[in-house]
Amino acid sequence: MPPLSQPDLPEPAHPGIDSMLSRKFGKEVANYFSGSPLNRVSFLRPDHAFLTSALHHPSTQFLVFNKLEPLLKSSTELARATFSDVKSVIGENPWERPEEDIIAQYNSSLYIPQIIFLGLDERKEGFVYKEHYKGQPWFAVDVTPKESVQDAAEKLVEKLRGGGLEFSKGRMHMSLPAEEAAMYAEARHLLDWNARNPFCASCGYKTLSVNAGFKRTCPPKDIASEINQGERPPCATRTGVSNLCFPRTDPTVIMAVVSADGKKILLGRQKRWPPHWYSTLAGFLEPAESVEEAVRREVWEESGIHLGRVVIHSTQPWPYPANLMIGAIGQAIPEGENIHLGHDAELEDAKWFTAEEVREALRVGTSGLGEDAGAEYKEGGLRLPPKTAIANQLMTAVVNGFASGSPMI
Amino acid sequence: MPPLSQPDLPEPAHPGIDSMLSRKFGKEVANYFSGSPLNRVSFLRPDHAFLTSALHHPSTQFLVFNKLEPLLKSSTELARATFSDVKSVIGENPWERPEEDIIAQYNSSLYIPQIIFLGLDERKEGFVYKEHYKGQPWFAVDVTPKESVQDAAEKLVEKLRGGGLEFSKGRMHMSLPAEEAAMYAEARHLLDWNARNPFCASCGYKTLSVNAGFKRTCPPKDIASEINQGERPPCATRTGVSNLCFPRTDPTVIMAVVSADGKKILLGRQKRWPPHWYSTLAGFLEPAESVEEAVRREVWEESGIHLGRVVIHSTQPWPYPANLMIGAIGQAIPEGENIHLGHDAELEDAKWFTAEEVREALRVGTSGLGEDAGAEYKEGGLRLPPKTAIANQLMTAVVNGFASGSPMI
Ligand SMILES: [Zn+2]
Ligand SMILES: [Zn+2]
Repeated sequence: MPPLSQPDLPEPAHPGIDSMLSRKFGKEVANYFSGSPLNRVSFLRPDHAFLTSALHHPSTQFLVFNKLEPLLKSSTELARATFSDVKSVIGENPWERPEEDIIAQYNSSLYIPQIIFLGLDERKEGFVYKEHYKGQPWFAVDVTPKESVQDAAEKLVEKLRGGGLEFSKGRMHMSLPAEEAAMYAEARHLLDWNARNPFCASCGYKTLSVNAGFKRTCPPKDIASEINQGERPPCATRTGVSNLCFPRTDPTVIMAVVSADGKKILLGRQKRWPPHWYSTLAGFLEPAESVEEAVRREVWEESGIHLGRVVIHSTQPWPYPANLMIGAIGQAIPEGENIHLGHDAELEDAKWFTAEEVREALRVGTSGLGEDAGAEYKEGGLRLPPKTAIANQLMTAVVNGFASGSPMI
Repeated sequence: MPPLSQPDLPEPAHPGIDSMLSRKFGKEVANYFSGSPLNRVSFLRPDHAFLTSALHHPSTQFLVFNKLEPLLKSSTELARATFSDVKSVIGENPWERPEEDIIAQYNSSLYIPQIIFLGLDERKEGFVYKEHYKGQPWFAVDVTPKESVQDAAEKLVEKLRGGGLEFSKGRMHMSLPAEEAAMYAEARHLLDWNARNPFCASCGYKTLSVNAGFKRTCPPKDIASEINQGERPPCATRTGVSNLCFPRTDPTVIMAVVSADGKKILLGRQKRWPPHWYSTLAGFLEPAESVEEAVRREVWEESGIHLGRVVIHSTQPWPYPANLMIGAIGQAIPEGENIHLGHDAELEDAKWFTAEEVREALRVGTSGLGEDAGAEYKEGGLRLPPKTAIANQLMTAVVNGFASGSPMI
């Protein structure tokens, strides 16, 4: 059994990816929103002594969010705050006591601004915990002005704006460098999950964020309640296995479909997109489906096409709000190439394009959804998503011969 | 761009997989719990006329569950019930009215036994809907004796037992034929998800199952409530995008790790497993991680090993309670092969085994967790999970030379 081969370097999926990584990992496509430089040291999240020292270390950096929008230094750079900037909102130390104590003292009437521990940047020296764990600590903090922190948060937001910083507008942040985009995605996904899940889906009572933002727990007692001395009824999340306590990430499939002869590519469009804009089909993976089955089902439901062979290409985390996009390339069977849009009502159109049309559009017709196409684009030509979208990477793989039988490894 | 090649037939991952499928789909590994023969026609789930006619068709089959355990004919066969069997519990037609009416008339004090529409078996003729959609309809029904159906359900359970059928005991059903296992997995995943999520995580009020078990909605009004004439407060799931209404499937990564020279395989064990039993490492994919990143993080956190190249192999749906296992093969970098168990406390042991040891154990030492190893197994030898586990398929792929650079397609 010889070692895994190390083939040619890949084209980086986005600018800014560390070329060291590309070399080490071989032919891997690192899609936008992946590629974080941080070590998450996930096992340290319940450790209040670790969190406390990371929070207070002078090298520590904070990403600041207001209603899920990140604070920016410019449209291509996240702003970084320090502990002294955010202290007025999060307090001197939310992790002063061990987690068991915080749960035992749970008071549903208190508002606690959300903090996420993102990880350690091991390239930066200074912070050390228990010898093994070194690097610059990164946190994300929600400073949305509300509840008991309304005044402090408003003052902080005003101060930050006075310093020339601004919270992002709109939900797409596709112009950040790769590493910042990945840190932003981690923070955004977790802030959104905490905000969407204030109540326990099992018993209906309020839950509490623990593990530095990576878990929500349903406390057995609430000192704000006078009913039954604050004791709550039994909850299934307190016994046995419960995924409800953990962040949700929905697997979705997205696929470039090639014709049986390998010469055409199937693309679809939604009504709300600009004219001439098409992309690959996509949809949610369902319970008890393999990725290949979900790809075949979605393609048939949306376009009527029957697929044979399906191969997984790469994955892209997608923080709007909580997806893992699993990219695949599928091939239609010869007798299954007729398009039928009548099953599901999701697409306005689906069409076979030649590989040449797609190759040309990848060269001149890509842009973000709200943006203009490039200077070489001619009105009426095919428009496609930008390189930061896995859809673009899948089409690129197809026109570059992914389907031609060359080894994956 | 030549067509995707159609290489040699794969070894089927489990007995009973349709060899036609293997031929059509090429070198795909179809893991246990995937491989359903049903067309889910997911877009018909909101259509009460479709559901009504499918429910009442004479060819229709029902899987019956009691506290998440399926009714069995034998340890290798699911029992199938008819509408007249289950009518006393589910009523003449729970889909008599359109879904909008059911939501508008929502009454949180009424108990509605859960029904899941599994799909159409297109190989069986008889049922036809709107010309296009043909095949034997399959449903799953929860007949757990409780609330208003306590008596009817108890009587039904007694009757079924009297006919020689029995509800499964324990949670593993790994001896079902592949197609039945896949239908069981779909039913079990959705019944469990509905049971775990009676309340809205966004507002804390009770939710209602719609779309034949594939969606839960937070109705704006509850006619059982006298507060504010039954009007409920606004809920975020009623506006904008909300994944909370849809079934949850947690992506997990599971990986066979090979050494830098390709000659050894890393396996780990948990304390509660039988002596000499090892398996591949595994863990949850986190927010904003690609699959490759999650694989590298988990392997480092659990074993201290640093991975370079990671390649996705196949996926396995896992209905305990709601996972998609994404199987990968990773290769350690030469300077990162030292085992360190001190980061996370998850594993009792992790160890490098030679490919020969693993190959021999795959031959003589595999079994379910509670079962004895085969007759050829010698006490003290390595024990491994059965073929129905993706862990086994990953190890098999490695010893069969997956890592040797042969084409994936
Ligand atoms: Zn609870
Ligand atoms: Zn709600």
